[in-house]
Amino acid sequence: MSKLRRTERIIALTKVLVDSPGHLFSLNYFCELFGAAKSTLSEDVLTIRQVMLEFGLGNLETVSGAAGGVRFRPFQPEQVIGDFLYELAGKLATPDRIIPGGFLYMTDILFTPELMVRVGEIFFTKFAHLTPDYVMTVETKGIPLAFMTARAFDLPLVIVRQGNKVTEGPSVSISYVTGSAKRIQSMSLPRRAIPAGSRVLVIDDFMKAGGTARGILDLAQEVGVDIVGTGVLVGTAEPRVKLVRDYLPLLVLHEVDQERKTIDIRPAL
Amino acid sequence: MSKLRRTERIIALTKVLVDSPGHLFSLNYFCELFGAAKSTLSEDVLTIRQVMLEFGLGNLETVSGAAGGVRFRPFQPEQVIGDFLYELAGKLATPDRIIPGGFLYMTDILFTPELMVRVGEIFFTKFAHLTPDYVMTVETKGIPLAFMTARAFDLPLVIVRQGNKVTEGPSVSISYVTGSAKRIQSMSLPRRAIPAGSRVLVIDDFMKAGGTARGILDLAQEVGVDIVGTGVLVGTAEPRVKLVRDYLPLLVLHEVDQERKTIDIRPAL
Repeated sequence: MSKLRRTERIIALTKVLVDSPGHLFSLNYFCELFGAAKSTLSEDVLTIRQVMLEFGLGNLETVSGAAGGVRFRPFQPEQVIGDFLYELAGKLATPDRIIPGGFLYMTDILFTPELMVRVGEIFFTKFAHLTPDYVMTVETKGIPLAFMTARAFDLPLVIVRQGNKVTEGPSVSISYVTGSAKRIQSMSLPRRAIPAGSRVLVIDDFMKAGGTARGILDLAQEVGVDIVGTGVLVGTAEPRVKLVRDYLPLLVLHEVDQERKTIDIRPAL
Repeated sequence: MSKLRRTERIIALTKVLVDSPGHLFSLNYFCELFGAAKSTLSEDVLTIRQVMLEFGLGNLETVSGAAGGVRFRPFQPEQVIGDFLYELAGKLATPDRIIPGGFLYMTDILFTPELMVRVGEIFFTKFAHLTPDYVMTVETKGIPLAFMTARAFDLPLVIVRQGNKVTEGPSVSISYVTGSAKRIQSMSLPRRAIPAGSRVLVIDDFMKAGGTARGILDLAQEVGVDIVGTGVLVGTAEPRVKLVRDYLPLLVLHEVDQERKTIDIRPAL
């Protein structure tokens, strides 16, 4: 095989693997696609894997056996995560983000694909060992980052809706009290969205008192699924005791000072 | 430069480019990252480009000049689009998707990352020539596919909300009549979400009469932005005349027969 052929094969292989994180491709699939021997492809996979590890671009996992193959897993090195979160905190700390009422405007960040891809890969890195079956979030603003997390895992997303939607069939609903504003809300999940017994990773954009996360916990119990982890992009420092115990914030919001127009937000990892 | 070094460089280059569709990287950036000469990298880019075109994996565009560089653009070949939509129509035509009321359950498909990545790339392929500045959708179910479209373009997403949210500052709201159910709804957009004069691509999951799309058109006028295109994953065959004129459906839903438990849905491209 000529030098060019190997390079060509390796480019296509890298692209196809990276395009579908978590998806297990059998080596036979690639053998047919490239007209190459299995041993040749095994070597290619090793080379790609080495480069990815060297440049902190993720990992390739090989699964042996008849149902085996190779898959790309977008693990992020600690150093890369730290740098990214430091930069993100900087972006979120600009004074023009303060909204009357002392809220922090984050919507533009939450809806920027390039940033949310990274956040999804960080959540994947932190929660991969929990082997969830589904990623779950509550509408609306957390959906893009939850979806990118689901993508990094190669898992389906489940969205908890506020109110009932007829186009989704029979649903399970609960009422809950929002932690900070103390309003009563309802949330619901279509019966067919998730089978009982599933392992669920909850991902959301923001947590203050944890009322919504507590609501999800109650809803999960009602539906018979198991919340194995909860990740939020931004958690507030106060109240220190939230309505849920185990959750991982990537950033901690310490203070929004409307008078002095300062925002104190810091990486939590 | 040894054979291995070139392969290594090409793997990392492919990964970095593919990871950020639409993002323009200067060749100097890669020169520093890999310690290689500009001419060497230009050759690498050519090789990667050839392989991508050969395997229908997208394209690499080089932009010349001081602010120039190279970027990955996930254009999909017609044949690949056709095959994918045919397969997707098959997935959506299973009788257990019929929900009382004659609705079609699509939520699981809409929330599966691997499928929505593909849909986003198809919308990109079809609308790239319109050079939008933003991708816009209405909450909730269309968000993942609109976000993946935004990612394929490297554009920010803007989500039109139902009702007002205090955490997003001053908003523009309109009332509209849903096309099929004839209910009055309101939708709103935060003032700071999008500058006047922007070119907007609207992406949604479903269109029946087009009431929501019509509402977005009115809201866009109020905000002073220009809708340059509208894409929906599924459009219904009836009513034939929608409340908006120009829209591109990827699939057309001809009939949901509750009695005979059949669904007639076909690729539109």
